[in-house]
Amino acid sequence: MKILVIGAAGMIGRKLVGALLERGHLGGEDINGLTLVDIVAPERPATFPSAKTIAADLSAPGSAATLLEDRPDVIFHLAAIVSGEAEADFDKGHRINLDGTRYLLEAIRQAGQGGAYRPRLIFTSSIAVFGEPLPAEIPDEQALTPLTSYGTQKAIGELLLADYSRRGFVDGIGIRLPTIAIRPGKPNKAASGFFSGIIREPLAGIEAILPVSEDVRHWFASPRAAVNFLLHAAEMDSSSLGQRRSLTMPGLAATVGEEIAALRRVAGDRAVSLIRHQPDPVIAGIVAGWPQAFAAKRALALGFAAETSFDDIIRAYIEDELDGRVS
Amino acid sequence: MKILVIGAAGMIGRKLVGALLERGHLGGEDINGLTLVDIVAPERPATFPSAKTIAADLSAPGSAATLLEDRPDVIFHLAAIVSGEAEADFDKGHRINLDGTRYLLEAIRQAGQGGAYRPRLIFTSSIAVFGEPLPAEIPDEQALTPLTSYGTQKAIGELLLADYSRRGFVDGIGIRLPTIAIRPGKPNKAASGFFSGIIREPLAGIEAILPVSEDVRHWFASPRAAVNFLLHAAEMDSSSLGQRRSLTMPGLAATVGEEIAALRRVAGDRAVSLIRHQPDPVIAGIVAGWPQAFAAKRALALGFAAETSFDDIIRAYIEDELDGRVS
Repeated sequence: MKILVIGAAGMIGRKLVGALLERGHLGGEDINGLTLVDIVAPERPATFPSAKTIAADLSAPGSAATLLEDRPDVIFHLAAIVSGEAEADFDKGHRINLDGTRYLLEAIRQAGQGGAYRPRLIFTSSIAVFGEPLPAEIPDEQALTPLTSYGTQKAIGELLLADYSRRGFVDGIGIRLPTIAIRPGKPNKAASGFFSGIIREPLAGIEAILPVSEDVRHWFASPRAAVNFLLHAAEMDSSSLGQRRSLTMPGLAATVGEEIAALRRVAGDRAVSLIRHQPDPVIAGIVAGWPQAFAAKRALALGFAAETSFDDIIRAYIEDELDGRVS
Repeated sequence: MKILVIGAAGMIGRKLVGALLERGHLGGEDINGLTLVDIVAPERPATFPSAKTIAADLSAPGSAATLLEDRPDVIFHLAAIVSGEAEADFDKGHRINLDGTRYLLEAIRQAGQGGAYRPRLIFTSSIAVFGEPLPAEIPDEQALTPLTSYGTQKAIGELLLADYSRRGFVDGIGIRLPTIAIRPGKPNKAASGFFSGIIREPLAGIEAILPVSEDVRHWFASPRAAVNFLLHAAEMDSSSLGQRRSLTMPGLAATVGEEIAALRRVAGDRAVSLIRHQPDPVIAGIVAGWPQAFAAKRALALGFAAETSFDDIIRAYIEDELDGRVS
């Protein structure tokens, strides 16, 4: 079982590689080949010294073909520039997020021309493919009407993935990730940053800013759940997908108030007292346009699973990032 | 008012140009510039001798920019290779239908960088963007899940059109055309050909083959209605579209049996007796996967209108193609 991870240096990519190495197998076969790719070369895992680590830009013509030289059985394509950057730099977003994905699909198709090469490709899409209208609970049959260039590029990636799969060039599965919380690391400037920040900072004994009201509702899964989505997508029977190759992943719909109540249960009043309400109309306006909840019936029926309480999301963070300890 | 028609030599393109010249104006302004483009140079209209006629391949880099030299106010982008050809030649379909549309959008964006150039662009999409699941009446919010490469390319065109419009690079409107009937001309090998053939041939005193059962139901509009959709899209207030820039056009849901009943009412028993039932399981199988009816509420609310009976569709054909005479 040879595995290629594109976007291996990102937060999810690193956790995915860690999980793969801890298991040592995928789909019932031992992992005996591992290629890790990102825009800067990812670190070589100490426990898998034969791993190839490559710095590559998927949007450079010819780049994708070289990544396929070992004919990986499973490819995880996580590489993308994020929403804010794709909005700020239109050309770069289309180049990395659209051309990059298309070049990868085309390289897989070309690699398969001479024989029976048809790898499983897991493509990470996003709930940013949904825009308007937004029912309170979005069904699997909802039209993709993205309100950002990032969402547009992801939606196009889903369409190409489906067509390349239908034609037999690749065995593709697209997974639309919820907002991932709790993100480890430092606060960033993403509009969604506070969803993680109001848990992560108080758990570290640091004050956190809450820029929206407590009744704001959104759709979450933990990094641990995201890695499990990727692994399940790699191992599942793809024939049950039919022609609809992309799936909204399950998640947890929670309000900010429910987040805070969970924090109080898990870490006490002292942690909650570190959340400072400081309304920001700009952030509130952006977040108001985001989806709040999904039905995700297809993914649930296909065996994908996420947390069912925010307490579990917080506990996963404490176990995975804080060695089980709250300061 | 300067107008550019890309795909001007096709059936709808020729009728659109004819309608534009007959009116002489668009959006309240006299038409004083007309550029007609197709893969082979379209005929120069006798009534508009200053029209430019250009043979161009939109998928050739740089081609789109030259078409914009006169800075047309309204651009009709009808050029595409059809479903069957896009399925048979994957590369050609992606090149013409996907790259061609993207190059046009990008050329418009580049032309607008220096100033306030932001033309209205009418993009013809198709009900082939819909695949599975297919409710009996497809709502405007239905996900695009195309089952052909052609439908995939049109769906991607819609997504790009929306994003380029949202960013202010173009004022785009995508219209998803129903199956157009009655198509003039000779029978062709398209799986949908019989829908027109069983009316057109009998009206000419010629036998026609019906390869499916009379209960097959599909979604139709006349060529005349299609031209009116295009003209209305060019003239409407696009601000009422919001961010959802593509619209399923209204049409008429009719069974083959209803088609035949309409033919009997309009042209009598003798015409109907020329329809020969000759079941073709292959064609029946293809057609079984096609949508049967749409709600098209948004387009109706925005003033788009189609025929409401198959009798009207047949009469439009007799008026427009047979000078009002049935043989």
